[in-house]
Amino acid sequence: MHNPQLNNNGELQHLLTIEGLPRDVVTHILDTASSFVSIGDREVKKVPLMRGKSVFNLFFENSTRTRTTFEIASKRLSADVINLNISASSTSKGESLLDTIDNLAAMHADMFVVRHAQSGAPYLIAKHLNDIGQPHVHVVNAGDGRHAHPTQGLLDMYTIRHYKKDFSNLTVAIVGDILHSRVARSDIHALTTLGVPEIRAIGPRTLLPSGLEQMGVRVFTDINEGLKGVDVIIMLRLQNERMSGALLPSAQEFFKSYGLTTERLALARPDAIVMHPGPMNRGVEIESAVADGSQAVILPQVTFGIAVRMAVMSILAGN
Amino acid sequence: MHNPQLNNNGELQHLLTIEGLPRDVVTHILDTASSFVSIGDREVKKVPLMRGKSVFNLFFENSTRTRTTFEIASKRLSADVINLNISASSTSKGESLLDTIDNLAAMHADMFVVRHAQSGAPYLIAKHLNDIGQPHVHVVNAGDGRHAHPTQGLLDMYTIRHYKKDFSNLTVAIVGDILHSRVARSDIHALTTLGVPEIRAIGPRTLLPSGLEQMGVRVFTDINEGLKGVDVIIMLRLQNERMSGALLPSAQEFFKSYGLTTERLALARPDAIVMHPGPMNRGVEIESAVADGSQAVILPQVTFGIAVRMAVMSILAGN
Amino acid sequence: MHNPQLNNNGELQHLLTIEGLPRDVVTHILDTASSFVSIGDREVKKVPLMRGKSVFNLFFENSTRTRTTFEIASKRLSADVINLNISASSTSKGESLLDTIDNLAAMHADMFVVRHAQSGAPYLIAKHLNDIGQPHVHVVNAGDGRHAHPTQGLLDMYTIRHYKKDFSNLTVAIVGDILHSRVARSDIHALTTLGVPEIRAIGPRTLLPSGLEQMGVRVFTDINEGLKGVDVIIMLRLQNERMSGALLPSAQEFFKSYGLTTERLALARPDAIVMHPGPMNRGVEIESAVADGSQAVILPQVTFGIAVRMAVMSILAGN
Repeated sequence: MHNPQLNNNGELQHLLTIEGLPRDVVTHILDTASSFVSIGDREVKKVPLMRGKSVFNLFFENSTRTRTTFEIASKRLSADVINLNISASSTSKGESLLDTIDNLAAMHADMFVVRHAQSGAPYLIAKHLNDIGQPHVHVVNAGDGRHAHPTQGLLDMYTIRHYKKDFSNLTVAIVGDILHSRVARSDIHALTTLGVPEIRAIGPRTLLPSGLEQMGVRVFTDINEGLKGVDVIIMLRLQNERMSGALLPSAQEFFKSYGLTTERLALARPDAIVMHPGPMNRGVEIESAVADGSQAVILPQVTFGIAVRMAVMSILAGN
Repeated sequence: MHNPQLNNNGELQHLLTIEGLPRDVVTHILDTASSFVSIGDREVKKVPLMRGKSVFNLFFENSTRTRTTFEIASKRLSADVINLNISASSTSKGESLLDTIDNLAAMHADMFVVRHAQSGAPYLIAKHLNDIGQPHVHVVNAGDGRHAHPTQGLLDMYTIRHYKKDFSNLTVAIVGDILHSRVARSDIHALTTLGVPEIRAIGPRTLLPSGLEQMGVRVFTDINEGLKGVDVIIMLRLQNERMSGALLPSAQEFFKSYGLTTERLALARPDAIVMHPGPMNRGVEIESAVADGSQAVILPQVTFGIAVRMAVMSILAGN
Repeated sequence: MHNPQLNNNGELQHLLTIEGLPRDVVTHILDTASSFVSIGDREVKKVPLMRGKSVFNLFFENSTRTRTTFEIASKRLSADVINLNISASSTSKGESLLDTIDNLAAMHADMFVVRHAQSGAPYLIAKHLNDIGQPHVHVVNAGDGRHAHPTQGLLDMYTIRHYKKDFSNLTVAIVGDILHSRVARSDIHALTTLGVPEIRAIGPRTLLPSGLEQMGVRVFTDINEGLKGVDVIIMLRLQNERMSGALLPSAQEFFKSYGLTTERLALARPDAIVMHPGPMNRGVEIESAVADGSQAVILPQVTFGIAVRMAVMSILAGN
């Protein structure tokens, strides 16, 4: 089947998910990002690659943090950014999602950055743009439901490559609420694509989705077992709203069983790195001593995240 | 009486309403807009006409869609835009409208784009700016109460001219809730100014204001009669909030009596165009097959709307 | 003790409070501001001093007016501005203030403009940036609790210097709710630093903090006594929320006892100027005839405020 993310030349047209993305496309994004990392340190942190382009941040689900990273990335590429908090907007006037897209496309939008609570919404938008003869408008998925968060996956890969150089001999553990995590899903696809030989998923049975083994992931419910000898630990955020349900006893219980402590970290390789997509719940999924410790690369992830988003946006705008 | 929208040289100083605007001023805006239509297709969609100018979007009534069009227009003219959602702001601290204007003018504002639930608010602001010796600060009415929505009226005229070339032999029908519609009012004034020989208003008696005949408008309560032989159909949005009142039975009833269906559209001239200011209530005032059909020019209206707003703003800034 | 606002060369590193700021630093800011005053009148109101710099407006407490002044100042310095309304953001996801700062610093922020309901929050942020090895990121206090509002204090000094030329022979009265006012506190420190020989505080006993005399301030509970012969009157905003408490009888009572009327103004020197930080409660702390009268310099304060903020930001960015 045709990959809806690629154009007829096999170039990136939209970024919807890492699943099915060719390895050379992923690598090209990471290589491009590395040229943007240094821009953040410059006196003038701007390049004119997207001057005069109109980027719309369509956040149907509120996320100041992610919106901010895309807003900064756009501005450093010299694009014009328009933030639309859609929940508070015309959908409340009964307009459909696709009518909204039609309208913004008619305003000569160049790119939509889409965050949506519904899995598949960015794909639906990309398909619709193609149907209405606007295939040159690009879509970037900034997180859709439980489905995918591809720029987070890519910045995680950038971070791993930065510290570990080579993917081909790594063991990577993903720890926590994997069931509800679009970050976990995107990371697993990216790690697989880049040839990581061992991917582990660690969490309570109630927060592990079925089908992980078929994706080539080794499943652990005992964190002490799962962390043994790993090179990379990706902690996931525990959403407080899950806490009240039947899936979890309490934040304290979760920390006792799955929180990343200094003791548990010692089970990993001595040069293991600790990652987290943020925002962190200190004392729930991660101990403060670990979060602020020498093995944590959580803030470099944020820095690389800007560069990766600049890379994705400039590659799309150039295709 | 002196026209408060024009300066002593008869040039546009503010855009408050289309009523009373000389035909050559309207035509000059449309001509200027046509030079901006092509900018949307360019690689770099910016011109430096308003570089360093400060445009304040003062939205006392929330409207993401209209604010977005002005924000894009401002950015494509290279202006600095500041969005102020005033309902949530200092008026809640008890500051008066005119104190707010005094303050923003003291910050060297160049232009206010004003949306307000109160008819006449933009006029009040323009008058006040003159009174305090700041007549060089321009006001654009982005919709005030039931009174006027002049940029919508102008973009509607641009759209009609684009498809019909000449206004002097047209029959134009405006359909729906004319009573509450500032769009209808602005369209009627613009069509009259541009010499359209036959303007029709179609709607239920409860949604037709008195005085239409005195404005030279032919009134129809039977849509099938009213659409016969027209060149242009302007559908109006039915505000859902009217539905609960005594003015209307129900959305379904309205669609049955006044919804634009394929069958009804066939009563108009075969080359008739269908317009709508958006956002559309599909299945209420317009059938989806018509909204998406070949005679609909609803999305070109949006595209032309950006160009018309760029034209208005750049003309004001130049005067 | 080391002044946390100055770097090792004695240059301004952060602007947290006027207290303890050397007089030459204050004077340098005012001198720099005067070069920016004229920019507001230019055709192109922009200078490239902060091109490519990322300024974050961190408003933990809502204030459209103050945020707008910093947003305009940033844009006229050609910086990229990102507005973060933090109350509605990740703190609601349970992220700590310092984690938020870590994250934004990792995005290569150059400057934080901070408004916070908690006294000391901007100082805490500045200290933290130093602790995490990001001392080159600057903090501007845009108002913290009852503590300080240094840019307001500086713009008040600019205004006084503009109209009175010399501080060394002035009598300045501050009138109203001094207890809750960060503006009053910043003004008293600034006036003292600049050598004003007589500072008066006028208000009801319940709204006068203890310790004013130790700061060299003469206290008056009778406004008619306090205004006699003063050169400058700084009126404070009465916060409506105080009105319901035990501190004040009613707005009408307050106006009767402490409102600045034409009659009372006549007690001051004939060339006395009247200032107010805005937004004004007309008829509560100030009579409309005075607010709009020839001695009021309330709108020039706003104009100078933009220039002073541009001065502070550009000086920080240059150090």
